[in-house]
Amino acid sequence: MVVEWTRRAAEAGADLAVFPEMMLTGYPVEDLALRESFVTASARTLLATAELLAVERLGGIAVVTGYLDRRQDLAPRVGRPAGAPVDAAALLYDGKIQATTAKHHLPNYGVFDEYRYFVPGDRLPVFRMPADGGPVDVAIAICEDLWQDGGPVLAARTAGAGLLAVPNASPYERGKLGVREELCVRRAREAGAAIAFVNMVGGQDELVFDGGSLVVDATGATVASGPQFTDALVVADLDLPAAAATPPAGTEPVDAGDGTTITIHRLALEDLGAAERWPVTPGRGEPGDPGAGLTSEPPQGPPGGLAEVYAALVLGTADYVRKNRFRSVILGLSGGIDSALTATIAADAIGPDRVHVVLLPSRYSSGHSIGDAEDLVKRQGLTARTIPIRSVVEAFEAELPPIDGLAAENLQARVRGMNLMTLSNQEGHLVLTTGNKSELATGYSTLYGDSAGGFAPIKDVPKTLVWALARWRNEQAAGRGETPPIPENSISKPPSAELAPGQLDSDSLPDYETLDALLDDYVVRDMGAAQLVAAGHDPGLVERVIRLVDGAEYKRRQYPPGPKITPKNFGRDRRLPITSRWREDLGR
Amino acid sequence: MVVEWTRRAAEAGADLAVFPEMMLTGYPVEDLALRESFVTASARTLLATAELLAVERLGGIAVVTGYLDRRQDLAPRVGRPAGAPVDAAALLYDGKIQATTAKHHLPNYGVFDEYRYFVPGDRLPVFRMPADGGPVDVAIAICEDLWQDGGPVLAARTAGAGLLAVPNASPYERGKLGVREELCVRRAREAGAAIAFVNMVGGQDELVFDGGSLVVDATGATVASGPQFTDALVVADLDLPAAAATPPAGTEPVDAGDGTTITIHRLALEDLGAAERWPVTPGRGEPGDPGAGLTSEPPQGPPGGLAEVYAALVLGTADYVRKNRFRSVILGLSGGIDSALTATIAADAIGPDRVHVVLLPSRYSSGHSIGDAEDLVKRQGLTARTIPIRSVVEAFEAELPPIDGLAAENLQARVRGMNLMTLSNQEGHLVLTTGNKSELATGYSTLYGDSAGGFAPIKDVPKTLVWALARWRNEQAAGRGETPPIPENSISKPPSAELAPGQLDSDSLPDYETLDALLDDYVVRDMGAAQLVAAGHDPGLVERVIRLVDGAEYKRRQYPPGPKITPKNFGRDRRLPITSRWREDLGR
Repeated sequence: MVVEWTRRAAEAGADLAVFPEMMLTGYPVEDLALRESFVTASARTLLATAELLAVERLGGIAVVTGYLDRRQDLAPRVGRPAGAPVDAAALLYDGKIQATTAKHHLPNYGVFDEYRYFVPGDRLPVFRMPADGGPVDVAIAICEDLWQDGGPVLAARTAGAGLLAVPNASPYERGKLGVREELCVRRAREAGAAIAFVNMVGGQDELVFDGGSLVVDATGATVASGPQFTDALVVADLDLPAAAATPPAGTEPVDAGDGTTITIHRLALEDLGAAERWPVTPGRGEPGDPGAGLTSEPPQGPPGGLAEVYAALVLGTADYVRKNRFRSVILGLSGGIDSALTATIAADAIGPDRVHVVLLPSRYSSGHSIGDAEDLVKRQGLTARTIPIRSVVEAFEAELPPIDGLAAENLQARVRGMNLMTLSNQEGHLVLTTGNKSELATGYSTLYGDSAGGFAPIKDVPKTLVWALARWRNEQAAGRGETPPIPENSISKPPSAELAPGQLDSDSLPDYETLDALLDDYVVRDMGAAQLVAAGHDPGLVERVIRLVDGAEYKRRQYPPGPKITPKNFGRDRRLPITSRWREDLGR
Repeated sequence: MVVEWTRRAAEAGADLAVFPEMMLTGYPVEDLALRESFVTASARTLLATAELLAVERLGGIAVVTGYLDRRQDLAPRVGRPAGAPVDAAALLYDGKIQATTAKHHLPNYGVFDEYRYFVPGDRLPVFRMPADGGPVDVAIAICEDLWQDGGPVLAARTAGAGLLAVPNASPYERGKLGVREELCVRRAREAGAAIAFVNMVGGQDELVFDGGSLVVDATGATVASGPQFTDALVVADLDLPAAAATPPAGTEPVDAGDGTTITIHRLALEDLGAAERWPVTPGRGEPGDPGAGLTSEPPQGPPGGLAEVYAALVLGTADYVRKNRFRSVILGLSGGIDSALTATIAADAIGPDRVHVVLLPSRYSSGHSIGDAEDLVKRQGLTARTIPIRSVVEAFEAELPPIDGLAAENLQARVRGMNLMTLSNQEGHLVLTTGNKSELATGYSTLYGDSAGGFAPIKDVPKTLVWALARWRNEQAAGRGETPPIPENSISKPPSAELAPGQLDSDSLPDYETLDALLDDYVVRDMGAAQLVAAGHDPGLVERVIRLVDGAEYKRRQYPPGPKITPKNFGRDRRLPITSRWREDLGR
């Protein structure tokens, strides 16, 4: 990948190519960072890449790329073992690794656990490279280094760098693109340097990296920007200040150069007081803290927020399927909106011919359910079949003692889940789970029933947003003169699990506008009961919903992963004990 | 709890009562630490406890207890927000909170994530309390503060404290008791002070806190020790040196006393250079680092290691049932050793009358399977029933396209799981999952089949240890003149999943002695492929087992929790991505 894209950069006339954080390993690597063989493989791949670039006659381009390494040239400090893993970046040039550096600010909140894995860097490499208008100084910082005050940004200014190259692995959440852009503008002005913000693209388990790379000049003006959700070469022609004749202020000269080749200097971050900074506590909303996103403000991104969310779900699903080497998916189609949207996302991700759907009617399925499901199949050209569950349910009932209520409802959902799992085992499809975030929050789902599956595309999508995305997808199609993929009736009819006669979601849950607003405050903003009531939520509902959410932790623990799109997803972002006597007190 | 046990301490003549870390909240609280209402509730409960102690005429006993608080009297430092959560301890006396402190060394490896939640303390409180031989100085440190070199232990020495009171929440793992004892001896000598090591008791999700509290004098001699796995009052009569006439060296006097009541001093840890210490990187095996346990040495604990492990499994199971308010459990009985041991643990945990077992014979179940299961039921007096799965399997097969191989095997396992879940929903039992660690490692289990359930008692028990525990439990019974609870045939027969005719585990897996040794090196010690081969494992088997283990990550992600007993369990201890292209290279 690095060699291939460096060639494209060379063809576009680039002197410098910057790649994302942990480009060689993917992110997050989790406990693989603690496995010696894995770290060694990353370090070896870096060396091989440097050599291959030279073999491919690309040694004359400076390449900055993220990778995983162990502590090497970084000065040892008390209590920090030598050889501990670092979230590293390297400068490759002339077939060699010219300089390496390690991320200084390690995020350890939300979905990030970097204190578990890494020790921080304490040197900022500044390299002097030849350019048309004379040599320029380029500094390297990594991801969180840009989000936190002080440290590398300040160091880049002190060093007088003309450009700050920043490899990133910044996961998508709604509206974050705009936040990143504002950050780059602010930091460019603070550093007095242009910034190349280069972000990873692709899905890995529950994270979707959305790209949206960006180059701003030292005044904060955007010079170039890349698309979201797709690999791209972003080319920027920067007019950088020529480097001073003497090495950058405060640096230790490592190599002396004549301006025709690359030379390296390193700035000790301790000298700037930055090394004393304590890791930011999660969710405190400090300026420059991405935890500030936890306040769940409305998206500040570009208009078309629904397009962005939808693209994240499609990429997350496509990459889970592809990277785990599945060729097709299978899911149950109920005629309702959740499975309709999930099937549509899957069809957009891997093509409708590879989306297998199963209609699993029960004795309680209404005529419109089957009709709506068949309509969706026809609109999209999905591969469909019907497997009635009645006879299996009856076979269970014949062997079991009399069952009723939830047990009887769950049994139907589980027979459906088991049919899908059996077809998955026999035919090799990945089972997609169709539950939304509102259901997952309240436990309105059946363990091993509708929650069965390997990946859950709309796991982090509240029900109200499910409807909005369905409408948006239909409008998009209509605007292009295509058949809207989702039957209007699936969007407009009142939601029902159809596990009992005449059952509606509204029998057991409040309307979804009210519920989703409350869930956002409780789950995403982490407000306590008294705060929720003070914020205007109905006290009775607050009590009931908190009880539902807290009581469903065991179900969430066994739920498959799905793409994160909100500031706090169920999964890496929100971690609670199952066993807990704590109950929120309404203060009444 | 604090008031009740303080009364018992008073009745035993105590002047000082020490409780575990996070006594008021339990441990770990995970993201509840970030919820304002929860932290406030903990802080309020502390105050209420102090007042209640006075009301109950227990104000004259000094009480040290762990709890959750937010940063208060701790001096603010750059980048550490005020009001951030701390893992705290308090001294209660005379109806008031006399002093508070916060854990200084925050563990962030293995099962611990304290950098996500807490900021560290930087003051060591030393309090002077009246005693028979004149006033004595007592210092407070918390759990990890004792495991790490420097910091509070050194500060206690500098302060000239006679006793170091240490609240702990130290989770069980095999052989850790002996490690803790050695630690206390070493630290007592270093600090020149007696140590009261007070550990939590009880199960919470996948952790079991085993108690085993300990009091050693300043020479390291054990003065008193408490039992494992059960709440107990440990009384020690210590002959402590009288406090110096002047306040302890290096402390800031907070209150001046005349020796007849408690006075407080605080020692700044920065002055000892301890605050600069970087959090220990996981698994590096530094001296005093509990990560050293990751080397999986043979238990150093007392003889009778099997008794200890068995007790941990029983307590973990009993507390999961009780604390989650279940009254009974249900599990499938196959006649094999895993379900037999799980049923026995459950019967020992909550009584055989509350253990419901279901025989779920299929067309492939052998006569001895049913016989062995029935024998176990009779030996223990469990509540049993039989639900054949054949008719349901046939009903599925009638609706589905032809299935074979794994799909047909998994279907049987899932019909069993679904029967148990339906009975759970109808009758309110907790479903116990019967899989062992060797199965979970290699993926030799069916998602939503035998892996269905809320709690998995032997999840962290390798198959060879399953047999050893079963034999041990039978011998214990025989030694007491009781009927051995587990049929000998379940222990001695070759293991089989019985999902196909004549199937044996040995058809698809190597013998369990070989497999478990390899799994221990790969999973617990985190050795790479080349290291495994160098350690003497068969290269072909290494390749195959690594492929199995890596490929089963998605199954483990949806598995229920179970009690940790080894240095590295599947769960909080070992965290890997599902989506990963990395494959270990054998270097051949």
